[in-house]
Amino acid sequence: MSDTFRAAQARSDAIEEQMAKDPASLRMLTGDRPTGALHIGHYFGSIRNRVRLQDSGAEIWQLIADYQVITDREIAGDIAGNVRNLLVDNIAAGLDPDRATIFTHSSVPALNQLMLPFLSLVSVAELQRNPTVKDEAKTAGITTIGGLLLTYPVHQAADILFCKANVVPVGRDQLPHLEQTRVIARRFNDRYAQVFPEPGALLSEAPLILGTDGTKMSKSKGNVVELRMTADETAKKLKGAKTDSDRHITWDPDNRPEVANLLTLIGLCEGVDPAAVAEEIGDGGGGALKGRLTDAINTELAPLRARRAELLADPGYLDDVLRRGNDRANEVAEATLGEVRTAMGMVYA
Amino acid sequence: MSDTFRAAQARSDAIEEQMAKDPASLRMLTGDRPTGALHIGHYFGSIRNRVRLQDSGAEIWQLIADYQVITDREIAGDIAGNVRNLLVDNIAAGLDPDRATIFTHSSVPALNQLMLPFLSLVSVAELQRNPTVKDEAKTAGITTIGGLLLTYPVHQAADILFCKANVVPVGRDQLPHLEQTRVIARRFNDRYAQVFPEPGALLSEAPLILGTDGTKMSKSKGNVVELRMTADETAKKLKGAKTDSDRHITWDPDNRPEVANLLTLIGLCEGVDPAAVAEEIGDGGGGALKGRLTDAINTELAPLRARRAELLADPGYLDDVLRRGNDRANEVAEATLGEVRTAMGMVYA
Repeated sequence: MSDTFRAAQARSDAIEEQMAKDPASLRMLTGDRPTGALHIGHYFGSIRNRVRLQDSGAEIWQLIADYQVITDREIAGDIAGNVRNLLVDNIAAGLDPDRATIFTHSSVPALNQLMLPFLSLVSVAELQRNPTVKDEAKTAGITTIGGLLLTYPVHQAADILFCKANVVPVGRDQLPHLEQTRVIARRFNDRYAQVFPEPGALLSEAPLILGTDGTKMSKSKGNVVELRMTADETAKKLKGAKTDSDRHITWDPDNRPEVANLLTLIGLCEGVDPAAVAEEIGDGGGGALKGRLTDAINTELAPLRARRAELLADPGYLDDVLRRGNDRANEVAEATLGEVRTAMGMVYA
Repeated sequence: MSDTFRAAQARSDAIEEQMAKDPASLRMLTGDRPTGALHIGHYFGSIRNRVRLQDSGAEIWQLIADYQVITDREIAGDIAGNVRNLLVDNIAAGLDPDRATIFTHSSVPALNQLMLPFLSLVSVAELQRNPTVKDEAKTAGITTIGGLLLTYPVHQAADILFCKANVVPVGRDQLPHLEQTRVIARRFNDRYAQVFPEPGALLSEAPLILGTDGTKMSKSKGNVVELRMTADETAKKLKGAKTDSDRHITWDPDNRPEVANLLTLIGLCEGVDPAAVAEEIGDGGGGALKGRLTDAINTELAPLRARRAELLADPGYLDDVLRRGNDRANEVAEATLGEVRTAMGMVYA
């Protein structure tokens, strides 16, 4: 993996440069699974970044990956509510429906059809080797791998390639999926005709953010600050955040991960160095730390929350945004599928 | 398998009865892979039967399974030519485009989208156990199972269920695929809402027909009489058919398989008992046997060949038939996908 990783990192660096010089040449696909409410982990890990990319002039395709929900669970739950939440949170955070195409992949049949030719380009052994799929199955406590879980990296290739995205922001753990997409694009182009770009990963540089208890964020553990919380709910949640027995606040990520996590969040909100924040707080202790973080998060999220409330009051607008996004996605997917069918000789009448 | 087989046979018998009593209640999906020219094996094995079913009043959906071509080979070859041939041969044999919907599955995105929810209903282990997939891989000399080969029984479920077919004519070897479709229909209905019928197999009673050399028919072995051959080409091909050293013709399938095969074909063409034909020919020997078979096949296929020539002279009509079939398939697939999305709660705007 390490050669692959170095190559991916080099491509990611090149994309960063291109973003500075010629952002309009970038077409970026990003996506979320509609499994629950978005929280500050998503916000700092990806949402803020995609808004930055949009504002720099890159073309944004924002996928709500609804079929992906049933890769590791039987029932999609309140899928419509979760889709609506993703839509609201993304727009509230600054994604502009006039510039970004926001869509649900279940609404784009021509995109989904790409699964068929793409599945013919990969072997089962290759799919079974995907380390991310293995990890995800393990995390979800799944012993029986389902057909959709095994093949969803191929579906993800369809998500990325139907709109010919050339950049996909991913965490390092998601890199095997993007490599699979690159392989599929390359094989299709080699076997039939040049149709797809080989997209590069934009590797996330966001620091890992933990839950309020210092462990991995998880809705079921109740350790997350959701974007839809009120300022008071946020204050309450952060008041219960775990620190440690040392009253004096210092920046020591290795030995004081919980404290460092809260400092990191302040740093992200205020755009300052967490070590400097630690020094300022010093003997103020955990109380001062949590107080400052509460202010910082509530200040950062205030405009998002205000916009959120406005959006929720206007369901017709939200319906319209999704409808327009899906229409545009269908238009582009049908054009790409047309190219694919032509390249494969599957044009008959 | 044997309990499963007995149950399938019982359902098949019930369908035969229903066909006699109330044929209009049957919606039948049949299909061919467009991998080459159709031959008399296809004709007596399935085409003649589907025309009979159509004429009895059953609703026919005739699939040209173009994506299935790339399950066991890299390149689809002259796929457009092969699709055209299937279209021509089926219509020439009596399929009526005003009563039967003839379509290519690559032209029906909403059908293909059903792959996604259906894949979530099966396990990889289940797919890997499918004996037909294993056999097909072996026959095709494939050592690396591709993603499309592993999952095509799920795609076949989409082919069958999108139009809510309740009957699928299959050979015994294809039964595991239909069982997979029944399982998918049942699981979908149980998990979400009653959307799909569980289709029954109509088990073929056609005798197995061998090639002119007494082995399995195969285009590459040159042992087949193709429907598109002329009467002269047919005569020439049958003149070279293998018989045995015993000049006296008898009906003895166990010990004289090549002779029995030719007698069977005469029986099928003329609607007579092959044993009686053997007795009539007797000392006439191989020459008389082949002569009678040539006449029988050429008589049987004469109307088909005449119609074939007419059809080939009118490509606009053929284009129109396929276009109409695909339009109808899309209409029905979109309605079914709509029901599926509603059942899964995936309706958003």
